[in-house]
Amino acid sequence: MTGRVMIIGLGPGPAKWVTPEANTLLAEATDIIGYGPYVARVPPSKAVRHASDNRVEIDRARHALELAADGAQVAVVSGGDPGVFAMAAAVFEAVEVGEESWRELDIVVAPGVTAVLAASARIGAPLGHDFCVISLSDNLKPWSIIEKRLVAAVEGDFVLALYNPASKARPDQIARAFEILRRKAGERVVILAKAVGRPDEEIVYTSLKAVEPADVDMRTLVLIGSSQTRMIAREDKEPWVYSPRRWEA
Amino acid sequence: MTGRVMIIGLGPGPAKWVTPEANTLLAEATDIIGYGPYVARVPPSKAVRHASDNRVEIDRARHALELAADGAQVAVVSGGDPGVFAMAAAVFEAVEVGEESWRELDIVVAPGVTAVLAASARIGAPLGHDFCVISLSDNLKPWSIIEKRLVAAVEGDFVLALYNPASKARPDQIARAFEILRRKAGERVVILAKAVGRPDEEIVYTSLKAVEPADVDMRTLVLIGSSQTRMIAREDKEPWVYSPRRWEA
Repeated sequence: MTGRVMIIGLGPGPAKWVTPEANTLLAEATDIIGYGPYVARVPPSKAVRHASDNRVEIDRARHALELAADGAQVAVVSGGDPGVFAMAAAVFEAVEVGEESWRELDIVVAPGVTAVLAASARIGAPLGHDFCVISLSDNLKPWSIIEKRLVAAVEGDFVLALYNPASKARPDQIARAFEILRRKAGERVVILAKAVGRPDEEIVYTSLKAVEPADVDMRTLVLIGSSQTRMIAREDKEPWVYSPRRWEA
Repeated sequence: MTGRVMIIGLGPGPAKWVTPEANTLLAEATDIIGYGPYVARVPPSKAVRHASDNRVEIDRARHALELAADGAQVAVVSGGDPGVFAMAAAVFEAVEVGEESWRELDIVVAPGVTAVLAASARIGAPLGHDFCVISLSDNLKPWSIIEKRLVAAVEGDFVLALYNPASKARPDQIARAFEILRRKAGERVVILAKAVGRPDEEIVYTSLKAVEPADVDMRTLVLIGSSQTRMIAREDKEPWVYSPRRWEA
C-alpha cells in the first residue's frame, strides 16, 4: 500500500465534535504523530504512537513524511482544525523544502471544528457577520505584524478572535493587545472562553474596559465584538451574545 | 418536556463532516426548520419538516421560537456552521425583539465545519496564519462597510475568505471586490473552491490578476492569499497551497 499523510483535526475536545471523517482516517492509521495531549485523545488502536512536546512542529512534520515515504499510513493530529494555527501548514512547509519525492505523496487534510466556532456556539452567535482570526503568538512572526493586524481588525469593525493569547513565555502580550484595541475601538463586548466543551470550561463575560489580562491563559479563546455586538440579558442565566446580521453605521 | 431550539450546523455537505452532536440533536427533534436544501439533508425521521425559501431567516427564527415556546424540540438547520452567515444570529435577533418569555427558552447552538475550513483542507493549508472572513452580500449591510473591510484585510495582510461572493441578484460585486484587492495588494494567490465535498466540486487555482469574475458563483468560496501564501507545484497533480507559519516582511 502506498504511504499517506493524514492531517486530522480532532475538534476542541469532546467526542461529539470529532467528525466521522476524522474517526475513519484514525482507524486506518499505522502511526499517530502529534503533541502529547492530542495523541492521548485518539481512541485505542494498534497504531504506533509518536507523542512529542509542543513547539517541534517541523520535526514532527518531517517525521510524518519520512514514515509515509516508507509506506506508512500516518495520522498527524491537532486539536480544533488542523489548518488553523496547527499542523497542516508545518507539513506543507516541510514538503516544500524537503525531499523531491515527498511531492508525490498522498496528503489528505481532514477539517475540524476550530475553537472560535465552538466558543461562539457556546455563547450565542457573536460571529453574526464578518470576523478576523489572529494568533497572538510571536514565536514565528514579529509583534509588529500582529499589532498591524489588530489595528486593521478594528478599522474594518470586524469581530475578532484571538488564539494563543497568552503562555508562560508570553504573559504580557494580551494586555498590550487589549490596550491597542481600547485605544482604537473604545468599548466593546469581550468574552473569555476557556476550554470550551471540556470539564474545566469557564466563560467570562466582560468588556474591553473591564477585562483583566490576568484572566487570560493558554486555554482561552478571546472574542472581541464589533461595534454591533450585543448581549441579551436573561434572568438568573448567562446572557446570550450575538452580532446582528444587519450592520448600521 | 420543556421546549428547546437547537441551532445546528450540517457542515459543507457530505455526511463525513456532520458532527456526532448534530446527529444526536437531530434525532431528538420534533420539528425541523430551515432553507429547503438543508432540511432535505437531514436523515429520515418522524420530525415535522418546515422547509422554507432562502432570505426568510427572521420568519424562520420566529417560527422556531414559537414552536419551542409551545413545548417542541425544534432543530433549525444551516449548512456549514450555524454562526457563520447562517441561522444562529437570526434566532438571537428574533429573541431580542420578541416575546419576553423567549429569553427563558433553552437554546443550544451546535457548531459545524464551515466552508472556509473545508475549502482550505481540500487545497492544503492556506490559513496557516491570521485570516479574515467576509460575506460579500450587501442585503443586510451597506457596500461601503464591505469595501472598508476588504481594504482593512489587505492592510493587515490577512488571508481572506469571501462567502456569498455572487448571486443572480448581485453578479458584479465580486468583480468590484477583486478590483479593490488588486489595487491595494497587487498580486496574490486566488483559489475558487466550488461545492467542496459535493459531487459538483470544482477547484480553480488562479491569481488576483488572472481571476475571471464570471468563474465565481453562489456555490463558490473565494480564498485570497496573504503576501506570504505559496503554491507547491506537483507533476501531473494539483498544486498544494499553503501559508507558512513564519511571516517575513
